[in-house]
Amino acid sequence: MGMKLYCFGESGNAYKCALSLTLTGTEWEPVFVDFFGGETRGPAFRAINPMGEVPVLVEGDTTLTQSGVILDYISSKTGQLGGRSAAERREVLRWLFWDNHKLSTQVGTCRFLSNFLPAEKRPEGVIPFLQGRLKAAYGVLEAHLEGRDWIVGDGPTIADLSCCSYLYYPEPFGFSRADWPRIDRWLAGIAALPGWKHPYDMMPGNPSDRA
Amino acid sequence: MGMKLYCFGESGNAYKCALSLTLTGTEWEPVFVDFFGGETRGPAFRAINPMGEVPVLVEGDTTLTQSGVILDYISSKTGQLGGRSAAERREVLRWLFWDNHKLSTQVGTCRFLSNFLPAEKRPEGVIPFLQGRLKAAYGVLEAHLEGRDWIVGDGPTIADLSCCSYLYYPEPFGFSRADWPRIDRWLAGIAALPGWKHPYDMMPGNPSDRA
Repeated sequence: MGMKLYCFGESGNAYKCALSLTLTGTEWEPVFVDFFGGETRGPAFRAINPMGEVPVLVEGDTTLTQSGVILDYISSKTGQLGGRSAAERREVLRWLFWDNHKLSTQVGTCRFLSNFLPAEKRPEGVIPFLQGRLKAAYGVLEAHLEGRDWIVGDGPTIADLSCCSYLYYPEPFGFSRADWPRIDRWLAGIAALPGWKHPYDMMPGNPSDRA
Repeated sequence: MGMKLYCFGESGNAYKCALSLTLTGTEWEPVFVDFFGGETRGPAFRAINPMGEVPVLVEGDTTLTQSGVILDYISSKTGQLGGRSAAERREVLRWLFWDNHKLSTQVGTCRFLSNFLPAEKRPEGVIPFLQGRLKAAYGVLEAHLEGRDWIVGDGPTIADLSCCSYLYYPEPFGFSRADWPRIDRWLAGIAALPGWKHPYDMMPGNPSDRA
């Protein structure tokens, strides 16, 4: 029995998990969640995840939420994409937390406000504020990637797959790969891994469905 | 040799670690970081933590950053405040990620903007936006605490200590314990644990130093 991932194409947090499942060769199938139709706010979805968030990974009796937990589970279960020592595993976890704390949470919000909310509902001042904080986060990642192909150790880990996810999306939110050459090189390295696909080619649902 | 925690009183993220060290009976000493004097932006601190963030835990040759990693390390090392099964440990990790993703990152920012930034530098519209998102997060926690004394299992874990931290501070940022009775009860339960202290009594530095 394979794993089921509740997801939708626009969710970078779901993409982290879809990409990790695919790159580890794990059998999985997507379950489309109609986020833009309000499904995550409804009682049926809240029964699956009271936090009301995508992604959710279900395998038999195990239901997991929060992308960091799901990534850790996939890595532990497959013995792939984790660190190779206790110190490397802590370093992987550090970047997962950093991503949740400083990068993805704000990229996700900024991208949503910039692209998926009607202009008249867009809260004044929030996008530039988030972009300012994100610039600092991109700077931390750019500096870390000096002389490195991967965030931790000498191969890809779930730290890379967590941090990269939102940065492949085409909708503009103030991030340009051209401004961050090491991030650009690193993203190209991840995209060159066998099995990599763009989020809209890996999960159901994308903005053209609502056009 | 005890552990050193780079911290300052106003940092809820540092408080999570200081509280976990104290409640596990771990020997530790605080190293004051002059955040408000710009120390975390300077090269000496960046050499300790290139992410430029407090807290940092140092024990011998091991330097750890990101509160979630530090909490996991303290819990693993002492055999306390973690889950009692693989499922409970994943549930603890889930709430650590949720806290980093949805609660502390936004409480910290909202509190900083509301209290520690001169009014003329306060970005328009950001505080109400963050307060709206935080209301949803408080609601998730309030609902989860129905019929529970602790976030995971039947005793305190690092999940409680991560999520509670910013909610003890006196400076106003839009959170009132009276509005969330289960959160209020849960915070009282944590504060009743032997050894608990308020952040300003546990770490050096507080707003009155700058008055």
